[in-house]
Amino acid sequence: MSETSIINFASDNAAPVCPQLMEALARENAGPALGYGNDNTTRQMEERFRDLFGCNVRAFPVSTGTAANVLGLGTLAPPYGSIYCHTLSHIQEDECGAPEFFSGGAKLALLDGEDGKLTAEQLDKAIATSGKGVVHHVQPAVISLTQATEAGTIYQPEEVRSIGDVAKHHGLSLHMDGARFANAVVSLGCEPADITWKAGVDVLSFGATKNGAMAVEAVIYFNADKAEEFEFRRKRGAHLFSKLRYLSAQLDVYLRDGLWLENASQANRMADRLATGLRRTGYEPLHPVEANILFVSLPLDRIRKLEQSGFLFYVMGKNGEQGKVRLVTSWDTTEQDVDLFLSCLG
Amino acid sequence: MSETSIINFASDNAAPVCPQLMEALARENAGPALGYGNDNTTRQMEERFRDLFGCNVRAFPVSTGTAANVLGLGTLAPPYGSIYCHTLSHIQEDECGAPEFFSGGAKLALLDGEDGKLTAEQLDKAIATSGKGVVHHVQPAVISLTQATEAGTIYQPEEVRSIGDVAKHHGLSLHMDGARFANAVVSLGCEPADITWKAGVDVLSFGATKNGAMAVEAVIYFNADKAEEFEFRRKRGAHLFSKLRYLSAQLDVYLRDGLWLENASQANRMADRLATGLRRTGYEPLHPVEANILFVSLPLDRIRKLEQSGFLFYVMGKNGEQGKVRLVTSWDTTEQDVDLFLSCLG
Amino acid sequence: MSETSIINFASDNAAPVCPQLMEALARENAGPALGYGNDNTTRQMEERFRDLFGCNVRAFPVSTGTAANVLGLGTLAPPYGSIYCHTLSHIQEDECGAPEFFSGGAKLALLDGEDGKLTAEQLDKAIATSGKGVVHHVQPAVISLTQATEAGTIYQPEEVRSIGDVAKHHGLSLHMDGARFANAVVSLGCEPADITWKAGVDVLSFGATKNGAMAVEAVIYFNADKAEEFEFRRKRGAHLFSKLRYLSAQLDVYLRDGLWLENASQANRMADRLATGLRRTGYEPLHPVEANILFVSLPLDRIRKLEQSGFLFYVMGKNGEQGKVRLVTSWDTTEQDVDLFLSCLG
Amino acid sequence: MSETSIINFASDNAAPVCPQLMEALARENAGPALGYGNDNTTRQMEERFRDLFGCNVRAFPVSTGTAANVLGLGTLAPPYGSIYCHTLSHIQEDECGAPEFFSGGAKLALLDGEDGKLTAEQLDKAIATSGKGVVHHVQPAVISLTQATEAGTIYQPEEVRSIGDVAKHHGLSLHMDGARFANAVVSLGCEPADITWKAGVDVLSFGATKNGAMAVEAVIYFNADKAEEFEFRRKRGAHLFSKLRYLSAQLDVYLRDGLWLENASQANRMADRLATGLRRTGYEPLHPVEANILFVSLPLDRIRKLEQSGFLFYVMGKNGEQGKVRLVTSWDTTEQDVDLFLSCLG
Repeated sequence: MSETSIINFASDNAAPVCPQLMEALARENAGPALGYGNDNTTRQMEERFRDLFGCNVRAFPVSTGTAANVLGLGTLAPPYGSIYCHTLSHIQEDECGAPEFFSGGAKLALLDGEDGKLTAEQLDKAIATSGKGVVHHVQPAVISLTQATEAGTIYQPEEVRSIGDVAKHHGLSLHMDGARFANAVVSLGCEPADITWKAGVDVLSFGATKNGAMAVEAVIYFNADKAEEFEFRRKRGAHLFSKLRYLSAQLDVYLRDGLWLENASQANRMADRLATGLRRTGYEPLHPVEANILFVSLPLDRIRKLEQSGFLFYVMGKNGEQGKVRLVTSWDTTEQDVDLFLSCLG
Repeated sequence: MSETSIINFASDNAAPVCPQLMEALARENAGPALGYGNDNTTRQMEERFRDLFGCNVRAFPVSTGTAANVLGLGTLAPPYGSIYCHTLSHIQEDECGAPEFFSGGAKLALLDGEDGKLTAEQLDKAIATSGKGVVHHVQPAVISLTQATEAGTIYQPEEVRSIGDVAKHHGLSLHMDGARFANAVVSLGCEPADITWKAGVDVLSFGATKNGAMAVEAVIYFNADKAEEFEFRRKRGAHLFSKLRYLSAQLDVYLRDGLWLENASQANRMADRLATGLRRTGYEPLHPVEANILFVSLPLDRIRKLEQSGFLFYVMGKNGEQGKVRLVTSWDTTEQDVDLFLSCLG
Repeated sequence: MSETSIINFASDNAAPVCPQLMEALARENAGPALGYGNDNTTRQMEERFRDLFGCNVRAFPVSTGTAANVLGLGTLAPPYGSIYCHTLSHIQEDECGAPEFFSGGAKLALLDGEDGKLTAEQLDKAIATSGKGVVHHVQPAVISLTQATEAGTIYQPEEVRSIGDVAKHHGLSLHMDGARFANAVVSLGCEPADITWKAGVDVLSFGATKNGAMAVEAVIYFNADKAEEFEFRRKRGAHLFSKLRYLSAQLDVYLRDGLWLENASQANRMADRLATGLRRTGYEPLHPVEANILFVSLPLDRIRKLEQSGFLFYVMGKNGEQGKVRLVTSWDTTEQDVDLFLSCLG
Repeated sequence: MSETSIINFASDNAAPVCPQLMEALARENAGPALGYGNDNTTRQMEERFRDLFGCNVRAFPVSTGTAANVLGLGTLAPPYGSIYCHTLSHIQEDECGAPEFFSGGAKLALLDGEDGKLTAEQLDKAIATSGKGVVHHVQPAVISLTQATEAGTIYQPEEVRSIGDVAKHHGLSLHMDGARFANAVVSLGCEPADITWKAGVDVLSFGATKNGAMAVEAVIYFNADKAEEFEFRRKRGAHLFSKLRYLSAQLDVYLRDGLWLENASQANRMADRLATGLRRTGYEPLHPVEANILFVSLPLDRIRKLEQSGFLFYVMGKNGEQGKVRLVTSWDTTEQDVDLFLSCLG
């Protein structure tokens, strides 16, 4: 099957780059500029993040979501520290040990939780019984939340705030993996500040790749002090681009005139349309569908039929005659894509 | 001064992206494709490298020269190993300890050498007296050469071969930092194989960013066995792009129809023109000018005048009334740029 | 309370050094000898281990149980690897992240299991579904068992063998934390080989500190190939003693004439006596008592009384009016100690 | 040749343990005590260090000189930092990359200097031109001095002070490898404080192993703030002994009634006697003989004769008919040993 005939529900990172960002790259390409971020576009991009969050953030573009997460975590967790996160979190499941690598060997302390979410209560209890100050045990250092979660759910602002309070109470930092931050903001209809620094978040991985960029994320420090060592760690992690301005140019346009929210809205709406259609056909999604990811159990023969019809998606496991399917929509998913999927299934 | 009025001799990485690669990005953007290199463009790119080198290489795109170097070195040097390199080498001087980080703490064993080059003789002697097998000492693991060197000079094929023999004799791997590999190949007029696997090179950082790409290098393994763990280390280093195909698309076009050599030829020619002009004006370059980098001592007042006229370059140090200046040409340097520089200096 | 009036059930590492080992130290002290293990005592000690295991082992003395574990694991797990172990295991709970540190950031893959033990079935399933070969996931590298376990239980030879088969089937190494290996051998009445290399164990932490030594463990490699890099990692981990012979001298005597088994027998017998007494008083141990560790729930007022009477032990957690108590016997625990404890409790 | 017939000039770590420390071990062995330093002997030992230095130090016993150095350095240098030291320093030459390992990959910045010593001037210049704050370069973090040096020379108090001022001026920490600290203090006739905290030293490796202990060094923190993370790093480095009290007991006696100075005096006197004898025979030591190490060029035939007569020493290199010999005296070297050596040579 040729790559162009597929319909992608496999991942939002299989989507192409949205046209406004391609144009931004072309504009940036007009001439030379000093490397490593010493350029006007990068400065302008950082200003735009300050406007967006309404505070004096530092914003550092990197090229992968894993890089954003682990470079951030590396400045928050000492080698003898632990990072509290969900068993399903990307940092635990999908980064091949990058958090351990960039932190010099910190330990991920795994917690389960319904719909991919952690609660303030369970975190408080886990940290309180972790042996803080006892030399035999790794020391609680960071809580890392994913927003939107790997299960396609969303933390409400007050949920983040409660967890932020727990972090503060125990002297931990709060990190947010926002690979799908835009989808969360759109879903909540809130200000970006409401679920970040106002709720206690110290460092945010602000995703763009999954929402229309070529390969760009920003690491956002809400506290300049903690940002100091980031730049050395980014370089040392081989993540400082000489031609950084091409990342900055994308982010600059991404934030301008609400493009980032527009793209995420489309993805969320398509997930919603998909969920509605599935329910109508008798397939109840396994988690609340609050962003652009949806899990559902489908009969294996239907899965086969969908695959043969050119739909791309992941089967996360099988159980008898059923398969657990993950469906992800993106900025370029169309109503037609969704309706074709549903009619093929139906 | 606006960024567009500058004339760039600061670095080849300050140049923009060459138009053919911008077009390749646009073409790649036609639709979705599976992530992480599971796409046709990436497969095609790897094939092209096999044609180029005339052997069954593995080729892995990454986005920074430092990433290419240190991910490669990380598969060659154990944590208790040492990497022999020139005191001026990029891995020692300009990567903020990334080689140490990615190798788990290996040591760079520094050697001096005229015009930025190492010799087989000095390497043989250094390795022979390093305490191989003695538990108190780090163990010789890798020799790393830069081709073209940081001084703008070139290793001849027979020089690489002699060093390859030393590596083999002592059981070390041979690594080549080819951030400016294209400039070396053009300068030597040789086949890429002649200065790599046929001369004993195990892993090559094949640069493209400094020669017209946006942010792309390829790590080339001439021995598939040694490539096995690369993929885990790349992911773990946060250097595996979900949208890897946009890197592959650039490399694919870069290698097609000799574009990579064409770009490098322009840069080399302009360096040559600059050198000739400088000599004519009485300024002898400090090293042989064999690629696209040139060092020269200029009077401080001339340096000031050039800077005020919009020429960008680095002053590497001052000595009395003289400043040591580094001038780098790139694929987009024009004869007019060079002549303006010379006339401003003259 | 003075330290001499206490009765120790806190840990076998709170016991003093047994007299035969003190005498060995005095004998070793007769004169000078070359450092770093280049001495006759060390050579003789290693021979003794070959006799003990009936095969051509390499035996390396180190000074802490954590060092033995993590230096061994460091040679078995790559940085992008995972180490399967019990949630209660010492390497997870009590080493402050040392396994992550010495492996360059490998991940501990935690499994629960009754009475502190893992089963071949659960390991097989966990490894089979771990995403072997998939670049996003850490790669299964090692299974680590504790023998005797942290719960005071023992793996039967056939249990170890089944797990060894799973390891072999999936291409993993099998590591054994034998901080209380002597207690296990005594309890099983087997040959040391039966629960190690004949059952698939690659590397063993052979404990002595908890069984009468001053601060000595041996890392045993049943496969010389895998031992090669150990020596560099030991030195680099700062664990190679210049005066290594004082460790070797202890091990030499420890293995001579069955002293190691004699010491462990006493500890096991005292745990058994304690268990019998507790059961008689109505307190059923929480796990089978197979070695020298015993867990039991006691009323909080009894715990207080015991503590005030000079008995040392750890309370692992409280639940209403009950406390979960850990009692550890050692080579110097006497029948009188046990009986005093029981009568104080009774 | 049996080990007892040798006369040791190979290393002070080939000497046995001095009798007072063996007695201390026997005394400590009277009964059980809580592990990991929660014992009276350890508390008393730390008090003794406070008296010795006249300030509120933290003192942590470890078992190897390398451990003392690298655990200390690990708390002073970030992974992206550099540690200035002499090319001959133990941390560069003889620790198999342990400083890189424990610091998470910091770089040793090597400087040459006569007689194994660094000067304030060269350090000031090297740090000033190192690119502080520039993201491409590792960041100056620590200066590490060896006192007495590997060449057998001594830093005068005012020399240490000048270097301490340079460290302070540039915001670096000052570390001292005092594997032979006792020999330096005896040689200088100064107070320990004069060449440590009063001269700007932050962390000291206080050696005892080479001066009569079994395997004990203390890491001394003159600033409690910097000591905080040491305890986690020690445990994580697998260097926290459960039976720590046996290390503490040695240090306690070592410091009592000046035993440490007495032992070092004997070693220094014997080196002096050796130097005097060599000069008389026409062999001028290659460096000033200020402690207990001595280098001298001897004819190869004399070297052979000495070796055949049972004298142990290292030949550091050969040059024509000459060999460069290192001779080290220790607490148990006798006048007879020295005189036998000289008469065998003469």
